[in-house]
Amino acid sequence: MQQRPYNFSAGPAAIPEEVLREAASEMLDWHGSGMGVMEMSHRGKEFISIYERAEADLRELLAVPANYKILFMQGGGLGENAIVPLNLSRAGTVDFVVTGSWSQKSIKEAARYCQPQLAASNAESQHTTLPDPARWKLSAGASYLHICSNETIHGVEFQTLPDLKALGSDTPLVIDCSSHVASRPIDWSRVGLAFAGAQKNLGPAGLTLVIVREDLLGHALKACPSAFDYQTVAEHDSMFNTPPTYGIYIAGLTFQWLKRQREGELAGIAAMEQRNRAKAELLYGYIDSSDFYVNKVSPDCRSRMNVPFFLRDESRNDAFLTGAKARGLLQLKGHKSVGGMRASIYNAMPLAGVQALVAYMREFAQTQA
Amino acid sequence: MQQRPYNFSAGPAAIPEEVLREAASEMLDWHGSGMGVMEMSHRGKEFISIYERAEADLRELLAVPANYKILFMQGGGLGENAIVPLNLSRAGTVDFVVTGSWSQKSIKEAARYCQPQLAASNAESQHTTLPDPARWKLSAGASYLHICSNETIHGVEFQTLPDLKALGSDTPLVIDCSSHVASRPIDWSRVGLAFAGAQKNLGPAGLTLVIVREDLLGHALKACPSAFDYQTVAEHDSMFNTPPTYGIYIAGLTFQWLKRQREGELAGIAAMEQRNRAKAELLYGYIDSSDFYVNKVSPDCRSRMNVPFFLRDESRNDAFLTGAKARGLLQLKGHKSVGGMRASIYNAMPLAGVQALVAYMREFAQTQA
Repeated sequence: MQQRPYNFSAGPAAIPEEVLREAASEMLDWHGSGMGVMEMSHRGKEFISIYERAEADLRELLAVPANYKILFMQGGGLGENAIVPLNLSRAGTVDFVVTGSWSQKSIKEAARYCQPQLAASNAESQHTTLPDPARWKLSAGASYLHICSNETIHGVEFQTLPDLKALGSDTPLVIDCSSHVASRPIDWSRVGLAFAGAQKNLGPAGLTLVIVREDLLGHALKACPSAFDYQTVAEHDSMFNTPPTYGIYIAGLTFQWLKRQREGELAGIAAMEQRNRAKAELLYGYIDSSDFYVNKVSPDCRSRMNVPFFLRDESRNDAFLTGAKARGLLQLKGHKSVGGMRASIYNAMPLAGVQALVAYMREFAQTQA
Repeated sequence: MQQRPYNFSAGPAAIPEEVLREAASEMLDWHGSGMGVMEMSHRGKEFISIYERAEADLRELLAVPANYKILFMQGGGLGENAIVPLNLSRAGTVDFVVTGSWSQKSIKEAARYCQPQLAASNAESQHTTLPDPARWKLSAGASYLHICSNETIHGVEFQTLPDLKALGSDTPLVIDCSSHVASRPIDWSRVGLAFAGAQKNLGPAGLTLVIVREDLLGHALKACPSAFDYQTVAEHDSMFNTPPTYGIYIAGLTFQWLKRQREGELAGIAAMEQRNRAKAELLYGYIDSSDFYVNKVSPDCRSRMNVPFFLRDESRNDAFLTGAKARGLLQLKGHKSVGGMRASIYNAMPLAGVQALVAYMREFAQTQA
């Protein structure tokens, strides 16, 4: 069989080939039921079994404690920018750490529902560093503190999550982990709520994952639509509304794929973390060794998922992209707000894909010299 | 090839086999792009072409006038129960006609955002009739009037949409047409906004269609999340948020399938209407002729999409369902709130499926006699 191209899209993004093949083979008949998954009632035993396995597999993969609910919702990260404060803010003060485009959008949207306070920002460095948690201005009595733990556009990632308790704060931490969920373990002792659009590391666009500590439920504002009230969604096992059933199915196949992954002794998310580290080190290592390419993010907070880089001579951008596409290296153009290139190397991108990219980058630099 | 079972699910529901086959065949590589549709950036030319064709095909099929926006959103019908008043109510008076479970949910949810008024109800008949529009109590200056034009659970359908102008009212009409959209033409001269979850007649759950007259945009309440502000969504061609790309793709394939349908001289939605009429007449005709089964809805407002019926001897329900499944007639159990049976016979259900159902019903009645 011919090698598929390597797809570096920032999202919607590459899905493991095994997952796509399984989904294609079951499109007209899931496990002898006579129905495709898209055609099943969400209340029927067939879909319930798909849902329950997906929930259990994700809980196991991410070691989600029993006192956290896993919700399968709709609306994406931008939707959650409203849905989180509608559920958690109590119309009070909420702290935000702004580290790039996504957290900027979050603080702006939250102002509809609460009093957002800027606890810290990396705007001075053009979003290429991360502010030290020890210097964050934490508001007393804030309903929660929001961070984007991986900024998809600017390529900065919290290498470890901030420990607010160690800073003397009881404020729950909310993380928008859309673009690195399932790429490494999550320390739940530091997290009150995590949300993620599925379309980067989990499955198709239109499915949104919310994992929330139970004690944070039950405080939604009156303006919160019932379909987006976490308590209501939790009480109905994500089936108050008809859930995005096919997205849950594809995410479930992805969870099964994740459970099968191995790196030496490591399995599942631990294996993914090691592989993702190796992929990122290879790509950043080459960029740093080159005079032709540059990445502007401080090495201590470079994203392992989204690697924005620039050709020092940007007049060669089009030639670079054309050559990449001819070699089966797709969707490398950077986000329009920052320009340049971006290689998103999510879980579904194998090391071989990054090796092929580096080989091409090296060749392109040499031929342009 | 073996005949697929006939799937009478109320939603998520059967999808045309041609659509499923095409989706399966393109799962790993859409049109030589090297990517599956789930893996494409929503900003890339490949997905943009899918989106634009879907929008254009739907506009043609439903004869949507140029001054109406077609929005592809998330959140389903229950989400729209909040999103519509957030966008259109101006926190003022909104009239509701309650004709079954779905319109009941709508009026309840709207109370978060506006002053809902009950213009009419069919509760006295246990939701088996439709109140005469000439007798509706229309509020002066209402922001809009909401109806559910086909009640999925109770099986009542407006055979023609009410003409509020003819009743002397300028109030815009909002229709929740989730469960009969694309089954018959829509008279847009009577409609301000139509919404529909996709999972009955259009495609997979998680995609929500909103068609709205432009002059109704731009009045969202402050509490309306940006991702659900129709004006914002319209300005971004449904890509303010990452849209449910795969759902749009499947809906687009379904629109192409609809355009290929023929009944004699008729094509597209007109052909579907004729076919749906024939399917419904066959099923209701048999039920009415039988002493064994009963449908309780008044003949002048029986749904062509959702046919609830009861065995007069309900002790035989389980045997009926077991025998049906053995003959490849799936998901006939009625909604838990009303009991009995329900045959949902959406666009994807061929006449042959209804013929098979009637043949089985007749046989079952005879063997039980």
